[in-house]
Amino acid sequence: MEPLKVAFLGPAASFSHQAAVESFGSSAKLVPHVSFPDAFAAVQADKVDYAIIPCENSTNGSVVQTLDLLADPSGLYSDVKVCGEHYLTVHHCLLTRKGLLSLGPQNYGSITKLYTHPQAWGQCEDFLERTFKGIERQDVSSTSKGAEIVSKGTTERSGAIASRFAAEYHGLDVSEENIEDKANNTTRFLVLRNVNSGRTSRLSFEDVKVSSPAQGQASVTPTAQKTLISFMIRQDCPGVLADALLIFKNQGMNLTSINSRPSQIRAWKYVFLVEGQYVPTNESQGAVSGIIDALQEVTEGCRHLGTWADQFVSV
Amino acid sequence: MEPLKVAFLGPAASFSHQAAVESFGSSAKLVPHVSFPDAFAAVQADKVDYAIIPCENSTNGSVVQTLDLLADPSGLYSDVKVCGEHYLTVHHCLLTRKGLLSLGPQNYGSITKLYTHPQAWGQCEDFLERTFKGIERQDVSSTSKGAEIVSKGTTERSGAIASRFAAEYHGLDVSEENIEDKANNTTRFLVLRNVNSGRTSRLSFEDVKVSSPAQGQASVTPTAQKTLISFMIRQDCPGVLADALLIFKNQGMNLTSINSRPSQIRAWKYVFLVEGQYVPTNESQGAVSGIIDALQEVTEGCRHLGTWADQFVSV
Repeated sequence: MEPLKVAFLGPAASFSHQAAVESFGSSAKLVPHVSFPDAFAAVQADKVDYAIIPCENSTNGSVVQTLDLLADPSGLYSDVKVCGEHYLTVHHCLLTRKGLLSLGPQNYGSITKLYTHPQAWGQCEDFLERTFKGIERQDVSSTSKGAEIVSKGTTERSGAIASRFAAEYHGLDVSEENIEDKANNTTRFLVLRNVNSGRTSRLSFEDVKVSSPAQGQASVTPTAQKTLISFMIRQDCPGVLADALLIFKNQGMNLTSINSRPSQIRAWKYVFLVEGQYVPTNESQGAVSGIIDALQEVTEGCRHLGTWADQFVSV
Repeated sequence: MEPLKVAFLGPAASFSHQAAVESFGSSAKLVPHVSFPDAFAAVQADKVDYAIIPCENSTNGSVVQTLDLLADPSGLYSDVKVCGEHYLTVHHCLLTRKGLLSLGPQNYGSITKLYTHPQAWGQCEDFLERTFKGIERQDVSSTSKGAEIVSKGTTERSGAIASRFAAEYHGLDVSEENIEDKANNTTRFLVLRNVNSGRTSRLSFEDVKVSSPAQGQASVTPTAQKTLISFMIRQDCPGVLADALLIFKNQGMNLTSINSRPSQIRAWKYVFLVEGQYVPTNESQGAVSGIIDALQEVTEGCRHLGTWADQFVSV
């Protein structure tokens, strides 16, 4: 059988790459994609079997690019649905050129510039405040890209904030490990597939995924399901939002997350992305279609964006 | 009387500066603050009478720094409340050094680098795709900062995306005007005060604000009120979120916005910021306190973050 093709948000050695390795193992063909829209487009065009993309971080909150692509106001990704999720514990490290800081932390003062992804600054604020207060910060498109830049520098005394995985990939020293503010800083990734793909419907994500639980987490035996649904509210009926959310409750679905994003259709018109969780029983069998039917009565553009096995484990 | 002191998010000539001028006029003393926390801290310490900070853009959505400071998990800003809002229509321009592009758009090809705030890239994507595809983009802390950098450059052939206000302030050419994707791209600012300030309670924002409506908008005669309330959900009661939101409806309050942010107390524990709107009547008099009382039964850490006159005008 041809190996599975999985899109991840590149470059190589990114956290998305790590999440893809943890989810699909080494036998899958993992393909870097330069942007969120590229990864969605690859699934829509059936060029890959799956894509794995970050949707939320436990410290920084939602990844709005992912929400906006799921909301899909222009209908570009109408066949892309969520079929799974993966939680990755994020450990950031201070990476420097081989030998640059061989004397240890007392040499941190010689570093003049740091590179990382904007979200990573927010995840290491305590360390940065303590150790690199006021240093020049250069945003880059991914933590791994920062590691790559530092690895290629020859004269600049710079550092990158990225993973141990990225240090190994780019041949850098790990000058300090686990510099993140929160010990259990975790990113949730969504796994996407094309609903028209025969291959991923025969061989579902639940069948192909590598089942080793993330380090430090208890073994996962999922029974609960999660469902993601999007809708818009008619602007002349503001009270409708509470009615719409009540529909989830009436169908036995616990609301686990609500995000609102500009619909891009008109200023101040929002699309809501609502995630609910339920334990499958005989009674809950028709819950999702019941919710969709009821939402279509009171909302606009209601879409079911996928149902998958809940992988959340409280740590 | 001593003039009002108003904190805005600096540097000078930022959109926040413009919003402060539009809200408080030229007789107020407008004081630039370098960060969102600085502006909140100035209000908390009673060093300024008001602060005006962006909370939401009609294209890019919520400003999460503002949400996180309002949620205030560490209780640093417990006296800071919202007392007003201001809508500013955002017009972006391509700014260049005096004379650099005197021949007009056919010279755009000579520009090698652009500066702006990350949110402004998202607001001018069509223009950038059409005119500056693949150009080096340098993120800066504000659109006005980008204009300042370009104004100080002597050899670099660079441009900034910022306002006409910033062009005039920094002495730059406006090479192209209104380059934003959406004609009615609008940012909503919140006005903050300290609830213990005698001065702003005697002389409320409604009394001091400049009443000229934003350009292109109908005259505003607000009757509706908006209220912002935050709360957390007990983790063992996921179904409670729908109950909490129903409380707003039962008290005659229309939900206009729901945002969830990481609480920073524990991974995956959220704080919800819920905004509702109502028209004051004899019946609705006790609505806000009724909501707070009922929310305290089912949620954790429920706080009333302010009630103010709704300034929204549909365009």
